[in-house]
Amino acid sequence: MLWPVTTERDGGGGLRVGGVAARELAERFGTPVYVFDEATLRSRARAAVDAFACAYPRSRVRYAGKALLSMPIVHILHEERLGLDVVSGGELYAGLRAGIPAGEITFHGNNKSEQELREAIAAGIGQIAVDNHFELTSLAHLTAELSTTVPVLLRLNPGVDVHTHDKIKTGVIDSKFGFPIWSGDAASAVARTVAIPGLDLVGYHAHLGSQLFDAETMRVAVEIMVEFAARMRDRHGVTPRELSPGGGFGIAYTEGEPEAMFDEWANAVGSALTEACERCRLPLPELVVEPGRSIVGPAAIALYRVGAIKDIPGVRRYVAVDGGMADNIRPSLYGARYTAAIANRAERGPRQHVTIAGKFCESGDILIDEVDLPTLVSGDLLAVPAAGAYCLAMASNYNHALRPAVVLVKDGGARLIRRRETYDDLIATEVNL
Amino acid sequence: MLWPVTTERDGGGGLRVGGVAARELAERFGTPVYVFDEATLRSRARAAVDAFACAYPRSRVRYAGKALLSMPIVHILHEERLGLDVVSGGELYAGLRAGIPAGEITFHGNNKSEQELREAIAAGIGQIAVDNHFELTSLAHLTAELSTTVPVLLRLNPGVDVHTHDKIKTGVIDSKFGFPIWSGDAASAVARTVAIPGLDLVGYHAHLGSQLFDAETMRVAVEIMVEFAARMRDRHGVTPRELSPGGGFGIAYTEGEPEAMFDEWANAVGSALTEACERCRLPLPELVVEPGRSIVGPAAIALYRVGAIKDIPGVRRYVAVDGGMADNIRPSLYGARYTAAIANRAERGPRQHVTIAGKFCESGDILIDEVDLPTLVSGDLLAVPAAGAYCLAMASNYNHALRPAVVLVKDGGARLIRRRETYDDLIATEVNL
Repeated sequence: MLWPVTTERDGGGGLRVGGVAARELAERFGTPVYVFDEATLRSRARAAVDAFACAYPRSRVRYAGKALLSMPIVHILHEERLGLDVVSGGELYAGLRAGIPAGEITFHGNNKSEQELREAIAAGIGQIAVDNHFELTSLAHLTAELSTTVPVLLRLNPGVDVHTHDKIKTGVIDSKFGFPIWSGDAASAVARTVAIPGLDLVGYHAHLGSQLFDAETMRVAVEIMVEFAARMRDRHGVTPRELSPGGGFGIAYTEGEPEAMFDEWANAVGSALTEACERCRLPLPELVVEPGRSIVGPAAIALYRVGAIKDIPGVRRYVAVDGGMADNIRPSLYGARYTAAIANRAERGPRQHVTIAGKFCESGDILIDEVDLPTLVSGDLLAVPAAGAYCLAMASNYNHALRPAVVLVKDGGARLIRRRETYDDLIATEVNL
Repeated sequence: MLWPVTTERDGGGGLRVGGVAARELAERFGTPVYVFDEATLRSRARAAVDAFACAYPRSRVRYAGKALLSMPIVHILHEERLGLDVVSGGELYAGLRAGIPAGEITFHGNNKSEQELREAIAAGIGQIAVDNHFELTSLAHLTAELSTTVPVLLRLNPGVDVHTHDKIKTGVIDSKFGFPIWSGDAASAVARTVAIPGLDLVGYHAHLGSQLFDAETMRVAVEIMVEFAARMRDRHGVTPRELSPGGGFGIAYTEGEPEAMFDEWANAVGSALTEACERCRLPLPELVVEPGRSIVGPAAIALYRVGAIKDIPGVRRYVAVDGGMADNIRPSLYGARYTAAIANRAERGPRQHVTIAGKFCESGDILIDEVDLPTLVSGDLLAVPAAGAYCLAMASNYNHALRPAVVLVKDGGARLIRRRETYDDLIATEVNL
């Protein structure tokens, strides 16, 4: 799916999401505005939960908050039975404030600070996914000092190569994440963990990368993880109660692109885990997956207003919108490709090949390099689909841009869930002028 | 120059900037912290002003605020006689709040909103650098409605190719910026401008790109601009009172890299402008340049604390610090290369080839791909030079990171000028929970 499930054209041809006209949203909340469709959020969450529940006896889905940690959205996803995974003290704070029980939160990250670990322990975190030996040492000290026991996962690096953008593949041999299995590092981490009185080794975690489309990669990772778990059972007598091959389920950003289907992945991973555990005579652990992008990505559109239009004869037509790399850096950062549709009127008339430029003072600020659209005029509204993940999460105040408003739509109603920043927000942390 | 001019090692070998030990700064303000050296800010500003004053009878330097719009820093630069160029309503707001007179501010940008144009006019902006026909139309309406006259520059696209990163070259033929000269668009913009009663055509502006190292490109651009100005004088009787070939002066990010020297550029540009005007029989206009990066870039170091250290046998050693792509996205975005030095102790002992990784949940979050440093241990402080431009300006809250504290050092004293964000800042704009 590329567009939110409630997307439709009204009588006049204008775009509606959640029963609300894009035109109305732009007028009421200004542009750029990010519009999340509650029906899509819930249906994506249910699809993930149901797929894994069907494919494997005991499974759980945790939402990867780094894709977008909006408190009302996390709250909705929790109503749909998703836990939360966080990667910083800030995400933990926001997750707790959103009402997610600490016990349903996992804390990831390759360089957690002692302060963050203290906060997680104080909150009663569900589990800490330990990434490295430095963290094990910190946790040994902290749990001794606090006379407490902390449930931990060990993050393994299974050494599985995946086909995705270099910047977002994480489970390959050369990665900053996790304990490599092949080097013996993971085994020594298990030995250390079982020897630290304050740590309860709940199981193993891995994450292979982002925007994955081949379930086979996760199947292979699960097999490697189970075989490792069996060796550790033989050596240290520990069996994992939980096993998590992470997330990274790919989504479509433009028409016709593939997407990872939850049921296909659930079947591949579920059967791999069942078979591998049977083969290695391990009791079936709980299976935990951590989708982020695939839950919130397709649930949102970004709405922009068209401003200046410029023809470079023989080269291209630039159509500038009122957002760009400050609210969505993915095209500049990853070469990510997006598409767009006219939102304020019908998609009729002769079509043109155009470049959608942002308003930021940088040549690289191109939102969509090439897209075919009916002839645009200044004042038109453009909707960009699949805008829910890693846009707002990475948004900046570059060029002193105000970060956009965020709206939740449902059954014809729209609710502001994040207000647009103001000029005063831009200078709020400046002191001693 | 790579490091701030006051950088030194103290008796114990620790790094000091502005007479303050890095160790003390880290303890007092936490890490990551960005440390600006006031002496360097002032000396860079003076170097730019003096170089152009020497090379050309009438010149002015405007600081390009998009590199970093910190109010106290802009204020210091204004004391050194730099005006300001802004690219949004937000930057204009912050510049005015910093005490820069509106008349010394130029407003740039390829897609200014009507609201931003209104704010600029209301403030009494020095000049608006008009980028396109849509903006001319908006200004025609606005100046009529407000019965006012606005000084404008026309942003020309001279079609000069430069050697720099694709994402930051702006004066080439295929660019979203400016009126192309070769297509006749620039000429028709002049015709329109002189016919709009509310616009006072002050002169012409161009900007070729960022991180430029060859003064010859700016010399060529100036010649093209003057020849264009002469044709417009013949056709419309307008002579430019101001001519600006923009900024883009390159700086060094690692040891031994070249940098654009202000005096060399001033001589090249000044003589080109003098000769071209003489040849075309144009009176000498005021020459305006707009350095950003070259003023603030070398004035700051970023200080990070080393956390987890991880060896991937036969591959590399990852040293993780407590910042990364949220406070400095340039390595991920442009493949920018940085260097680093140990800041808390002497740079002694056997050296190692390491990768400096950030703490963000993304494989691409590598701050420095390869650097030789004495063997690091967890808890060490790392200083990254040339961190003053386009790091904080593009900083995000990715992974709910808190944007860093910013400190100004001078004569042994340190002054916090931007406080570190708090967890509550992260959720300040969330509403209707």
